[in-house]
Amino acid sequence: MGHSNEIDILVSEVGPRDGLQSVAATMPTELKLKWIAALASAGLREIEVGSFVSPKLLPQMADTAAVVAFARTLPNLFVTALVPNLKGAEAAFKAGVQKITMPISVSEPHSLANIRKTHAEVYQEVRNVVALRNEQYPHVEIEAGLSTVFGCTIQGEVPDDDTVRMALIMAGLGVNEVGLADTVGYANPTQVRRLFTRLRQELPGIAGSAHFHNTRGQGLANVLAALDVGVTTIDASQGGIGGCPYAPGASGNIVTEDLVYLLESMGLRTGIDIDRLVHAREWLRQGLPGEALYGFIPDAGVGKNFHYAQKAL
Amino acid sequence: MGHSNEIDILVSEVGPRDGLQSVAATMPTELKLKWIAALASAGLREIEVGSFVSPKLLPQMADTAAVVAFARTLPNLFVTALVPNLKGAEAAFKAGVQKITMPISVSEPHSLANIRKTHAEVYQEVRNVVALRNEQYPHVEIEAGLSTVFGCTIQGEVPDDDTVRMALIMAGLGVNEVGLADTVGYANPTQVRRLFTRLRQELPGIAGSAHFHNTRGQGLANVLAALDVGVTTIDASQGGIGGCPYAPGASGNIVTEDLVYLLESMGLRTGIDIDRLVHAREWLRQGLPGEALYGFIPDAGVGKNFHYAQKAL
Repeated sequence: MGHSNEIDILVSEVGPRDGLQSVAATMPTELKLKWIAALASAGLREIEVGSFVSPKLLPQMADTAAVVAFARTLPNLFVTALVPNLKGAEAAFKAGVQKITMPISVSEPHSLANIRKTHAEVYQEVRNVVALRNEQYPHVEIEAGLSTVFGCTIQGEVPDDDTVRMALIMAGLGVNEVGLADTVGYANPTQVRRLFTRLRQELPGIAGSAHFHNTRGQGLANVLAALDVGVTTIDASQGGIGGCPYAPGASGNIVTEDLVYLLESMGLRTGIDIDRLVHAREWLRQGLPGEALYGFIPDAGVGKNFHYAQKAL
Repeated sequence: MGHSNEIDILVSEVGPRDGLQSVAATMPTELKLKWIAALASAGLREIEVGSFVSPKLLPQMADTAAVVAFARTLPNLFVTALVPNLKGAEAAFKAGVQKITMPISVSEPHSLANIRKTHAEVYQEVRNVVALRNEQYPHVEIEAGLSTVFGCTIQGEVPDDDTVRMALIMAGLGVNEVGLADTVGYANPTQVRRLFTRLRQELPGIAGSAHFHNTRGQGLANVLAALDVGVTTIDASQGGIGGCPYAPGASGNIVTEDLVYLLESMGLRTGIDIDRLVHAREWLRQGLPGEALYGFIPDAGVGKNFHYAQKAL
């Protein structure tokens, strides 16, 4: 590893959840564990390892409790999972996650279409989850992952004010962090700077991660915009799996490999070794044979002028 | 067209030169003309239509004089061409180009490997071209396109000072503009901001276009960085053809379609209609059957919340 133990930007790997739940095939548990171990050994410090949802709905995620238990044995790894409701939260807390992310659609039509819940019903679910956490699992963090923030395929435009209002409500309900997600790949850098600036001003200490999809090829430009206004946690997925891929060649999530190259070449330390990260793709390839993997760095390699970011003097 | 006639950013299309000279097949002249006409009709205002080089070296470019003559008949189009030397400049001037771009390697090892010329020999060539222009074609612009500015596959790192020195020399020799090119896809946004800031400070009025390759997926992030420090001309190639594609899936040039979406969604007017631009791909597909075309917007379409940039009030 050509870099120090400290980091400037936390790259939060969501492939084992956002990626694996989006593909039709189910990756065998044993290979999931090897993949997650390889990612952690490459230096990733936070991995969303699965989703606590009904196995009838998403059989790919049926082994999430076992995956969490294994991931907790890995050194220097913060283990998170997606949780849509109280039932999922109970299972997640029992399994030993260190953080849960609850997806919250700012667009109510999207919430109704997606999880058949009004905003009022969503608030009640969050309230219940926070209460359970406060009573029995006080050390587990709760993040509200606000979705459709940059636009919605049903509603179209989503006003910034709606997002900020939702973030304030979530903070009021007791979540620890509010992240913003570009669910359908609509975000542009101007919007990203505007929204994260407001979020950080109006919810100091609570504004969380940026989650961008690369559906329209704008992912890394949006990352740069988020970095410019002080965001320090960026979600990404190895090989770009998951997200909402619209067409062949259009990856869903931004690609972890390309993101780490961007950050390190800009002088921002991630703690991640690019060679080891690229090697971790082998497990994904074995676990999901035939699935398209994206990313430029795995093919092109780093530039001859590349060096890992160093701690500023 | 959902936007006004004025523009904020000039998108300079280099596909007919940088793209077509990089592929093995030769696009028939008639289809080149139809493609260029379609690009112009989509609203592109500057197109590098070819290269005045030896047809033995690049048979794909043998018809450049005829292409220039045709392109000059299109309304609202500024017609440019690549020119490596005095002989090419003579032919370009005679053909009626409005601007020539001379590629100049900042890395001398790259210059020697690529065109077998020392820097001193390159300066003499530029001096001769400027003299000819001044005497006989005073209205034609000359741009020095500095290459290997962000790193070189032979030399590795290229110091900023070398680039600025070369830019000052070019300005002293009488070129109208100095652009910076990331020949091998090594650029990162920090470097882009630093170099274009210096260029604009030290050569006010002469700092020109940004030319990025997408070899490592960083193209649009680098565009954002260039916009941030005031660059107003960005090169791109329809379908991402050309550049230095390293591997399948790794486009060379940044993709015009995705660039225009980025700019317009950020509120920067390009004068380009995205639907018409996407339709222009048909000519490219006909002219280069089987050639891989890149870009997300042609597959994913614009977002439901998208609207063209409007003139600021």
